[in-house]
Order: sequence, then structure tokens, then C-alpha cells
Amino acid sequence: MTVDTVPSPVRLKAVAAKGQPDPSPALEQLYRGFERELLVPLWTEIGDLMPQSPRSKAMPHLWRWDRLVELAGEAGRIVPVGRGGERRAIALANPGLGGKPFATPTLWAAIQYLMPGENAPEHRHTQHAFRFVVEGEGVWTVVNGDPVRMSRGDFLPQAGWNWHAHHNAASAPMAWIDGLDIPFSYYTESQFFEFGRERIGTTEMTTPEISRSERLWGHPGLRPLSQPDAPSATPLLAYRWVDTDRALADQLALEEEGHAATLSPGHAAVRFTNPSNGRDVLPTIRTEMHRIRRGASTVTQREVGSSVYQVFEGTGSVTVGDKQWAVRRGDMFVVPSWTPFTAQCDATGDATLDLFRFSDAPIFEALHAHRAHSGDLA
Amino acid sequence: MTVDTVPSPVRLKAVAAKGQPDPSPALEQLYRGFERELLVPLWTEIGDLMPQSPRSKAMPHLWRWDRLVELAGEAGRIVPVGRGGERRAIALANPGLGGKPFATPTLWAAIQYLMPGENAPEHRHTQHAFRFVVEGEGVWTVVNGDPVRMSRGDFLPQAGWNWHAHHNAASAPMAWIDGLDIPFSYYTESQFFEFGRERIGTTEMTTPEISRSERLWGHPGLRPLSQPDAPSATPLLAYRWVDTDRALADQLALEEEGHAATLSPGHAAVRFTNPSNGRDVLPTIRTEMHRIRRGASTVTQREVGSSVYQVFEGTGSVTVGDKQWAVRRGDMFVVPSWTPFTAQCDATGDATLDLFRFSDAPIFEALHAHRAHSGDLA
Amino acid sequence: MTVDTVPSPVRLKAVAAKGQPDPSPALEQLYRGFERELLVPLWTEIGDLMPQSPRSKAMPHLWRWDRLVELAGEAGRIVPVGRGGERRAIALANPGLGGKPFATPTLWAAIQYLMPGENAPEHRHTQHAFRFVVEGEGVWTVVNGDPVRMSRGDFLPQAGWNWHAHHNAASAPMAWIDGLDIPFSYYTESQFFEFGRERIGTTEMTTPEISRSERLWGHPGLRPLSQPDAPSATPLLAYRWVDTDRALADQLALEEEGHAATLSPGHAAVRFTNPSNGRDVLPTIRTEMHRIRRGASTVTQREVGSSVYQVFEGTGSVTVGDKQWAVRRGDMFVVPSWTPFTAQCDATGDATLDLFRFSDAPIFEALHAHRAHSGDLA
Amino acid sequence: MTVDTVPSPVRLKAVAAKGQPDPSPALEQLYRGFERELLVPLWTEIGDLMPQSPRSKAMPHLWRWDRLVELAGEAGRIVPVGRGGERRAIALANPGLGGKPFATPTLWAAIQYLMPGENAPEHRHTQHAFRFVVEGEGVWTVVNGDPVRMSRGDFLPQAGWNWHAHHNAASAPMAWIDGLDIPFSYYTESQFFEFGRERIGTTEMTTPEISRSERLWGHPGLRPLSQPDAPSATPLLAYRWVDTDRALADQLALEEEGHAATLSPGHAAVRFTNPSNGRDVLPTIRTEMHRIRRGASTVTQREVGSSVYQVFEGTGSVTVGDKQWAVRRGDMFVVPSWTPFTAQCDATGDATLDLFRFSDAPIFEALHAHRAHSGDLA
Repeated sequence: MTVDTVPSPVRLKAVAAKGQPDPSPALEQLYRGFERELLVPLWTEIGDLMPQSPRSKAMPHLWRWDRLVELAGEAGRIVPVGRGGERRAIALANPGLGGKPFATPTLWAAIQYLMPGENAPEHRHTQHAFRFVVEGEGVWTVVNGDPVRMSRGDFLPQAGWNWHAHHNAASAPMAWIDGLDIPFSYYTESQFFEFGRERIGTTEMTTPEISRSERLWGHPGLRPLSQPDAPSATPLLAYRWVDTDRALADQLALEEEGHAATLSPGHAAVRFTNPSNGRDVLPTIRTEMHRIRRGASTVTQREVGSSVYQVFEGTGSVTVGDKQWAVRRGDMFVVPSWTPFTAQCDATGDATLDLFRFSDAPIFEALHAHRAHSGDLA
Repeated sequence: MTVDTVPSPVRLKAVAAKGQPDPSPALEQLYRGFERELLVPLWTEIGDLMPQSPRSKAMPHLWRWDRLVELAGEAGRIVPVGRGGERRAIALANPGLGGKPFATPTLWAAIQYLMPGENAPEHRHTQHAFRFVVEGEGVWTVVNGDPVRMSRGDFLPQAGWNWHAHHNAASAPMAWIDGLDIPFSYYTESQFFEFGRERIGTTEMTTPEISRSERLWGHPGLRPLSQPDAPSATPLLAYRWVDTDRALADQLALEEEGHAATLSPGHAAVRFTNPSNGRDVLPTIRTEMHRIRRGASTVTQREVGSSVYQVFEGTGSVTVGDKQWAVRRGDMFVVPSWTPFTAQCDATGDATLDLFRFSDAPIFEALHAHRAHSGDLA
Repeated sequence: MTVDTVPSPVRLKAVAAKGQPDPSPALEQLYRGFERELLVPLWTEIGDLMPQSPRSKAMPHLWRWDRLVELAGEAGRIVPVGRGGERRAIALANPGLGGKPFATPTLWAAIQYLMPGENAPEHRHTQHAFRFVVEGEGVWTVVNGDPVRMSRGDFLPQAGWNWHAHHNAASAPMAWIDGLDIPFSYYTESQFFEFGRERIGTTEMTTPEISRSERLWGHPGLRPLSQPDAPSATPLLAYRWVDTDRALADQLALEEEGHAATLSPGHAAVRFTNPSNGRDVLPTIRTEMHRIRRGASTVTQREVGSSVYQVFEGTGSVTVGDKQWAVRRGDMFVVPSWTPFTAQCDATGDATLDLFRFSDAPIFEALHAHRAHSGDLA
Repeated sequence: MTVDTVPSPVRLKAVAAKGQPDPSPALEQLYRGFERELLVPLWTEIGDLMPQSPRSKAMPHLWRWDRLVELAGEAGRIVPVGRGGERRAIALANPGLGGKPFATPTLWAAIQYLMPGENAPEHRHTQHAFRFVVEGEGVWTVVNGDPVRMSRGDFLPQAGWNWHAHHNAASAPMAWIDGLDIPFSYYTESQFFEFGRERIGTTEMTTPEISRSERLWGHPGLRPLSQPDAPSATPLLAYRWVDTDRALADQLALEEEGHAATLSPGHAAVRFTNPSNGRDVLPTIRTEMHRIRRGASTVTQREVGSSVYQVFEGTGSVTVGDKQWAVRRGDMFVVPSWTPFTAQCDATGDATLDLFRFSDAPIFEALHAHRAHSGDLA
């Protein structure tokens, strides 16, 4: 074939503007040549491609948990779960991203919903995933044959290329959120996927309180000598709320006792890490839990890369760029790249504001492209 | 504001298909709810988002060097170089990527052109860049005040956030290619840019044969003790053709003498590396030079991530997926993610086929997502 | 001064032996020249210096806990603790190491003893240290102002250059073991030492159940975001027996349920690791707890580098090279470099055999010099 | 056997001294108990074991090259080279180290001497080694079958566990220096050794100008894609004087042109590094070449760990602790741990002072134990 047979999607227009060549017949002729040869000059695109700092196409946006649960429940009644569709997962579609099911340019965030007795079939994929449970219980995720209980506050990382299925062993539906790097692997075209068994075996249908992975890797600072290295993703399949809650409470208590333990006054935070190397649980996704004391605020921060938050508990207000929302349990919102973010816990009531966060920061750290700025942004 | 005021870009359609719920009024109503709430289910998108292996939107495509040079020359006559447009660079627009100036989903490839006496103004950006010179000479790239000569066969990495300008000190125009990670930083929204001086100082206008960076870092295996670590990108600003050529010739000679030195029979290859740590010269871009002996072929390979090639010397044929082209000096072509690639040097004539290659492999290696497969792809 | 004024310690003797030059007057004269010039030929020393595999000068040896405690108690009565002597620590002196207080060529192992109300003064040193408590309680080690309780089964790493003191808050004496890399830093001449306060402050005299370091770093897989990286040594100052015991019990239970969780049948083991990076708690010392099921044995292993073991609980027999001992709680023994080691738990009684081990393996791993061989050594 | 049958090498003496318990019959009885049980208290040893900063047993010392060559030549006449003795190597024995052939506590330094036509038989060992040639030529070191020429100024690293032999292809004797980590592996008991062929094959007896390793790895910044990673030691077997000389000259020239390129005014320096990762060529030995401009001095420096220097060219004076020597070509001297060192090039004549240095710094860096202090030591 010849190169000329490809119909060109390139469209160029000479305009009178600063930094642009003056429109002229010669320029028009040049642009027609560019179109024909599938070429685009830098000078017409540089403003969009090379801004002085990130200008995200994603928008700050909030999804209310009650609306998510309501629609997921309707889907539970009319959309079956099975091979092909794979999961009853409903993804946040950032209004700035053209209707794609992408919460941010790199992150997928969805509510998944499983009816009593239902099973989501086994598969595996290179996309990294996690589950986080804001409420409910009764579902087990079975990872390479290891059943992992899911209960309120639990965080379950699911590193790429591990077989996994879900089954609801309870008599009520259950909803939780899934986070994945689907948009990142979609844009970079690096995905693999494989179907597993239609149904996991009966021995995998057991519902132990504690998974085998936790019995091997869930003891603080203790490495099981029988297990191989796990450089790329955590071998620990569940991080239980009881531990996360105690870690955050300890930080606030230490702060009260006069010791350096919090990120800023009243702001405790932990990162979920791979116990085999102390790094992020997943190569592309950072996950954290933040706790803000009654009446306290976080220091405003902006960071390269995007985040999705879910309110785990408490009420407060969050400011994302020029948006501000009052938030409560389950609400999810997006902080686009380099957009300033502040959270504040309500001063009334006795609860703290607990925020689950996930972001794409490990991508930028691995590539030496991470930048963050805290405090006054003037 | 309320969340409802955002006009939804989501459009969902119930269709009768395997793995999809049966169309029904209830399903239509559910989809309207999804649209209203900015939600998209996995089950309608999974085929596109989670293929069994990467299905690149980018297409294999070839650009002929003579056409590139001709259009760049026309641009040289009618498009000035200066602040705002910044560079007379004309980028390859992959026909599968909607007219955007992206050679692949992650890589930018452009021909840059400078007229005699012209100066491209100083700036810096976090995007990583390099120059490769397929023909010509006379331009110096000035990096943080260090003038670096550009001559045929030279490779000049240009790590992010270093000040740089170009000036043509010769009496003829000069063209070369630029490679950058503009698409990657565009999709991940991680770019910073800053203008520098309109004109570099006169002491930087000198035209030394050898840059200061080469005098410090260009001696094999010798590290200058006065210089700091350079973990994120190479401190060596030029890799000269005389070295590259000798390294490739040595490999073929060693192979002839019976020693293991080539990637496969008749296929020599070197990677440009950071002398301070042996890693890729840039965090996001791998760069290599390949030499194929007269009549020899490479082993067919597919790899996660995309590549752009430029023929440096010789004639041969290349096969990219279902496309095949006869190629000669300067021709550029794209190998999309997971697309099989083979190159063959013509059996007539005495030249080898020398191919310059750049790819996004370091991104995937850093994130433990790299995969490659050589040989029989049946 | 001239070089000749140094009295030579070199003594060379010509002997008739394989690989040696034949004795002759000329050879004697040559040797006198070598002695005068402070020279030694390889050919007379190669057998000692370059054996085919490590031939340790250290000998397998066992110290009985009751004898250690008895002598430490006598020392408690007549040797005060204070500045200058610094600690009432009594070190194992391997019989092969010339009377030096070295358990092995790289490791120091001592019993330390503190009377009721006593204080060991604050100091710091670059030598890395730990405490392990085989019995008793009542002492707090204060590290940089953080009081850390010491109770049976607890492991307290003490990385180099941190201020530390001990005080006995109980009404009974307490003994525990100290492990350090004193011999290694002695031979490599890399030690620094600094005196601290004579007495720690009263607020540091408190006796909290849980140290501040545990409240920050002791939650499994959770990293406190307020704390800096700790690449060289663990920030977690106590590893509690309740966790260690449960981790070992879990491994044996998993093995019984049919899952891969033990090093070999009936042999569970954990390594104490730095939660910030998953590596050994100290740069030069590896620490582990092993549990052998009733009647089970470990697989015989030999390894480059030396180990010291202490029996934590249970009875059994251990074989070190050509030595074999019946062991019980508190007994300590040495496994020299490359010496085969096997442990067996008694088949009678219901206890497991729990062995605390420390070794110099991180030194060899860091220098790419580690070797180990398991199983049949024929 | 019982533990009591080992004759105790421990000898303890009660003395009246600060920090020591008062002599008494009870103390004497306690010490006898310690001796019997192979125990040594910390309080009698702490001054020797835990000094405030390293107090090296090694002494600053100088060996004159002409004396080394003279004695090596005598050895060449009367001591044959062959299996058993393995090498005609004569080691520097530091006067502080008891007559052992150790230049420092960790480093071996020897002159090796080969008569015309002689062959040193093939062997391999885990000790890391290098050769440095201060004068002469004609010997080839054959590493895993790759003959490597040795000429004045060349540096040849020889990583552990590679087969190697030497043969003198010239009509004159040749001397060079060997550096190894023999003392370090001796104290840490981590050595393996294996005999190879008595005589290398005839194809390995060739005398190429350039080794195969150089043809693969000796091109600046270029990595041969056919070769595996070499994390533990350099794959480049020769660093040629022409490169080292040019690198040093470039630094001094850049300094003259006003650019930051030297360690301090008039003091250029390069480190020999592994081109595959930029790290030291050997895991335990750092190697560098320093050049001091006529009349210039280095900044006084002290560093944890020890060094051996050889004067490559020029004349000057060196100060090591309280010793000072006028030095000339070939002279070797030792800088013990934490001992201040300064070198000065003579102000007369036109030569620079070129110093080859090797040290044990990588050991301390790998173990986070490195410390250095430059400048005023008051």
C-alpha cells in the first residue's frame, strides 16, 4: 500500500494570533500539505500541549452516595452478573472527559453491587484494582483461591494479573467501590485480560474471618520466610478497619500528648503499603486514609496527578479548585491534577471526618515527575 | 452549585448483545439515570477498555523523509521562529489518533528546521526530549549555557526542566528530529513550562566541537567526582556517531569471530544510557540504535508500548503488523503497542540497515507493566 | 622519618612443601628482604587466606542460660552500672577467637543485667544493636526520649546513632540479651561513640505499655504520612511477642490446612523487618524467630556468615558441624560461617521449639557475597 | 562433649581505673567464672571496642617502588610460578597489623611479577581483585577466555568468581599491582576458591590490543543490548590510560575556562565505574585516579575506611596523619580509617601529580556506615 491512501484526520486553520504565523495563501497551502502528509505543527498546538502548569480536562465533581446506591440497586434488579459483562460495576464519568467512564484521566472509580447469593465470575487482568467498603458486609473476594472477607472500612488491594472472583454469601445486597487504573492502561495501551473459571470451587466458597494472605503477611513488621519477594504489588490482600482506625486514633492522641505525629494540626493520615517493601500497595495507585479532627482543616495542597476521595465517616466540607461541597458518608469526589484541595471537619457533633483517598501519584514518583505544593498558593 | 447543572456528556444505549442485559424499558430508564448522574456501566465498555491484549488506536504508518524535509523547508520560508510558537517543529500525526500531533499515544516525533542564523528562544519544560540528526550540521543546542554541537548521527538527550535554545551557526538550513513524551504528559496532565531568555548570551553562542557535558561525562566508565548524582536523567548531552558506529561495528565483528555479541544473527544494537546509573537516558523514553547486516533480519518481536523508528542509513524493508514498507534514509515509521515488528536489510549493496528507535518502554518497566515476546507469534 | 625505622612484625620461613619454592640460601635472603620491607608473599599464605570454602576460626559453642544468669547476677551484686563502663553486659567469647568478646567474627552477643531501680546512662554509637527478652520484665529502654517496655518475647532493635538508656522500674533484677555488630565495626574500623545525659528526664521515666514508635509504625501495612523515610534502619522500636507468636502459629496452622506457609514441614519462621521498606531491621544484622513443630526438624543448611541462636522456648537438639547439644530455654549457641546447622524439636511434651536467631547476612547480601546451601550436603 | 572441655582463651584482670569496678576478691572470683564460661564483660573492653571515633590499628606507611621492584625481581629469579602458590605476588604488610599480609584491615595490595613467557595458572575466587599498571607492558590477563592487554596506566577490574590467568607474551619481565579485598573476606569468613585449567587454550593466548569486553562495553554511554545486567560488578575489563588521562585533563581545562569541574582548585578526579549501573566497579573496592595540578594541594579529608595509594606520575608530598613523605612514581602508601590525608604536587617541573587510589568505601556505603569530613579538622 502507499501512505497516501490513509484519509487524513488532520485539520489545520491559519489564524491571526500571537505566536502564530500571519495567515496567507502560502500558509494555507503549507497547511494543506501538512494535512495530506499527516503532520501538525507545534506552533498551533503548543498552548494546549505545553501549558505553564497542568490544566486538567477533568473537572472537580461530586457524586452523592445515596444516588449511587439507588441506581446500583436498580441495576441489581434488572442487570444480571455473568461472563461477558463480568461485573455489575458502575463507573463515575468525569464531566470533562467526554462521557468516558473515567473519574480522572488515569483512574477508574465505580460502585460495584452484588445481590444475595450472586457470584461474579473469575478473571484476571493487568489493570491494578482495589475494593474499599464504605458500608455493608457479606461479600468475599476470592483471590487465587484465597477467600477475603469484605466489611465496612476494609481496604482490599487487587494487584494486576491475579485471578479473582466475588461471591455474596449474605442475605442482603452489598455495595462497595472499585478503584482501578483502567484509564491509564487504556491511554498507554498496556492491558491484558483473561477469563477464569465460571465458578470458583466449593472450598473457595468458605467464608473465613481472616484470609490466608493476612495470616502470612498481616503481622506488623514480620515477614514470613517461606514467601517470595513481592516487588510489584502487595501480598497482603486486606487491610482491616480495626487497624486503620487505631493507627489514625494513635496519631491524634500522640498529637494531643505533644508529639509530632500528624501531617498538620488535627490531620492524621496513613498510607496503605506493601509490607514486603514499604511502597505503595499497587504500582500505579496510591491509597490513603485521612482523619480530620472536629473543627480542623487540612493544609491546602496541590499535586501533580489526580485523586478520587470517598467520605468514609463524618461530615464536613471540601474545597476543590473553585468548587465547594458539604459532604457526608459515601460521597465521592474528584480532585484533578494541580487543583488546590482543602477539607474541613464540621465543628459540631463528635465525629472526625474520615476520608479515603486514592491517586495516581506512584506513576509520577516512579518517573521522577511528581510535584506537590502545600500551604499558601497565592 | 449543584451537581445536576453539569450537562452530561454520557450517552448510553441498550443493545441486544452477548454479555449485555436485554433491552427493556426498565433498562432504558436505568441508563437515563446513569446519564443524569454521570455514570457509565462496565458491561457496555469492557470490550473496549479491557481487551485480551493491547489493541492500539494508533496505526502502523510511514512518513517519507523527502516529504518531511520538503514541507519543513517550505515552513522555513514562511513561518518565523520566535517566542510563542517557540520552535519550527512539525509533528507526525498518527492517522489513528484523531488528528492530534501524536505519533503514538505516548510519543511525539517531529522534524525541526532552523534557517541559517536563526535562533529558537530559550525555554524549559518538564516534558523529556531528545534530538537525533539524520543529516546535516551547523546547529548548536545550548543547554543550561553549555553549547552542544549537532552533526549527522549524533543523539542529544534533553531531560525535562533544563533550559535550552537552538541556534544555527551555519550558512545552510538544518533539519533534525525531536522526540518527546508530550502525549504521555498530556494524558496524565503533568506538564510545566517556563519561558527563558529571548536570546542566549554571546559566550553561549560559541561553537565548540565538544560540549562541557561530554568533557565531564563522555569518558567510558569514568565518573567525574566533582559532579552530583543524576538519577532521573543523563548528564551527558551528546552521544556522538563515531562512538555509536564503532560500538555497532564491534558487535558485528565479534559475531563474525564467533562470540556472543548480537541480539540475533546479524542484528547489533545499543541503548543510549545515563552514564551515572546505566539506565535509560530519560525517565520516559528509551532510545536505541540498531544495525542489521546485509541480508539479515531481526527476530519478530512484539512489546507493550509503542515505538517510533527513523532509518539512519541503508535500505531494507520493515513489517509492522499487516503493513510492509521498503525504507531508506530518513524515513520514519510507527510500531504501535503489541504490534509485531520485523526489519530486514537489503541483500544487495554493501551497507547495513541502521535504525534509530525510540520507545516508551521505561514507563512500563518502572511500573512493572512491561511485556515482550520474541520469535514465533503463532 | 624513614620507612626503615619501623620494627617489622613480618616473620617468614622457607619450608619444603607443595606449591612452595624450595628452601635455599637465596630464598632465605629474599625472605629477609621481605621482612625488612614489610612484605609477605602470597605463596606462603594462600592456604590460610584463600580456602576453597570458608573455614571459620570461630568454633561451634554453647553457653547455658543458667550459668549466664548466675554470673550476671553475681556481677549485679558487685559491679556497679555507670558512666565509663556504661552497661553491665557480659559477652560470649568464642573459644576460637583468642579471648576476644566476640561470639563470631562479626557479632557480639551478651547478657545484660539491671538491678531494681538501676539506670544505665544514655549514650549513642554507630554500632547497631538489639535487645531480646527471653524472660522477665520491668525494664524500659528509652530511645531518643521514647520509653520502650521490655517483656518476655519482645524484640527491640536499636539502630546505630540513636540515643538510648535503660532503667529498671521493677522491684526485681532483669536480664536480657544484647546483640551488636561490634566485631564487624571493630575489624573494619568504622565506629563512633558519644556520651549522652547521665540521667534521662523524668518524663522519659514513664512506663507506658506501648511506645510512641509502635503507635506510629506498629500497625500492619500502614505508614504514618507524617514520618520521614527510614532507609537504613527500622523506625519501629519494639516487635511484641504476641505478634510474633501469632505469626508463627498461623504458619503452622496454614500448613496443617494444606497451604504453603512454612520453610519446610513443621518449620515456621519470620524475619523482623523495617516496616518502611521491608528490609532487615538493621543494616548489618538479620533477626528471625523460628518455630519447629513437636518432633520435626529443620532442613540442614549452611550459609556464608555466622549466626547466634538463643532458645526461646521448648526443648530439642541442635547440630552445628560436628557438635550436637540438647538445648532448653535461654541456651545460646553459635553457628560459624558455612557450618551445617540442623535443629530438632523433642517429640515428647506439647511445646514447639522456638529459636531466636541473629546473623550477619545483610552484610553479605548488600555486597553480593551471600551464598547458602540447603539440604543434602554430601 | 561438654562445654567445659574447651580450654578458655579468656584472661581478665581486675584493675583500679575509672569506669571499672574496684578490685576485690569477689571481683577476682567473678572474673575467674567469666574465664571458665568463656565470657568477657563490656566494661573492661569498651575503650578498645567503642572509641569515640575510629582508632585504626593500621599505621600510615610508605613502600618505595624501587624496593618493591627489586625484591619482586629477585623473586622472579628464584621463585617459580605455578599451581599451589598460584601467583608471584608480594603483599604489603602494614606494620600495625601483626605481620599479616594486609595493607589495611580490609585491603590487600601486592606487587605481582611475571617473567618473559611465564603463565600464572587459571583459578577463580570470590575475592574481588583488580590490576593497575604503573609501568611496563606485555602481559595479558585472560578472563573467562577473553585476553586483556595490560599497559602503563591501565586499570583492570577483576570481579569475584571469574576465571582468570596471566601470561607474559613479552621478552621482558613485567610488574604491576594487585588490589583485593582478601582481608575483608578473611575476617568475615566469606571466601570460595576454585582451581581452573593449568594452561589456558591457545586461542586465549592471542594478544589483541582490545579485549572483547571493551568492544562490548567500552563505548561511552552505550549499552550492548545482547548483554545481561551486571549488577554486582563491572563487565568492562579494562579502563585505558588514554581515557583516564583525557578525562582528568578535561577537568583541569574546564576549571581554567571558569567552569565547575574539579573537586577543589587544581584537583581533578575520576572514579572507575561499572558502565551498566554507574556504581563502583567492584562491590567492596572503590578505585579512583586523582590529578593535582603543579603547586596545588588537595583539601584535607578524613573518611571512614581505609585507602591505598600508588603514585602514577609526578612528584609531590603526602601527609597522612602525623607522617609526611616526598613521593615519586610507583610509591605506595596507606591511609588508615579516619586519618587526615592531604596531597600536594611539587611546584617545580611541569608534571601534575597523578595518584591512583583504592579504598573500601563501597562496603560502608552499602551498609549506611560511610562518613567523611573535608576541610578544617580542628
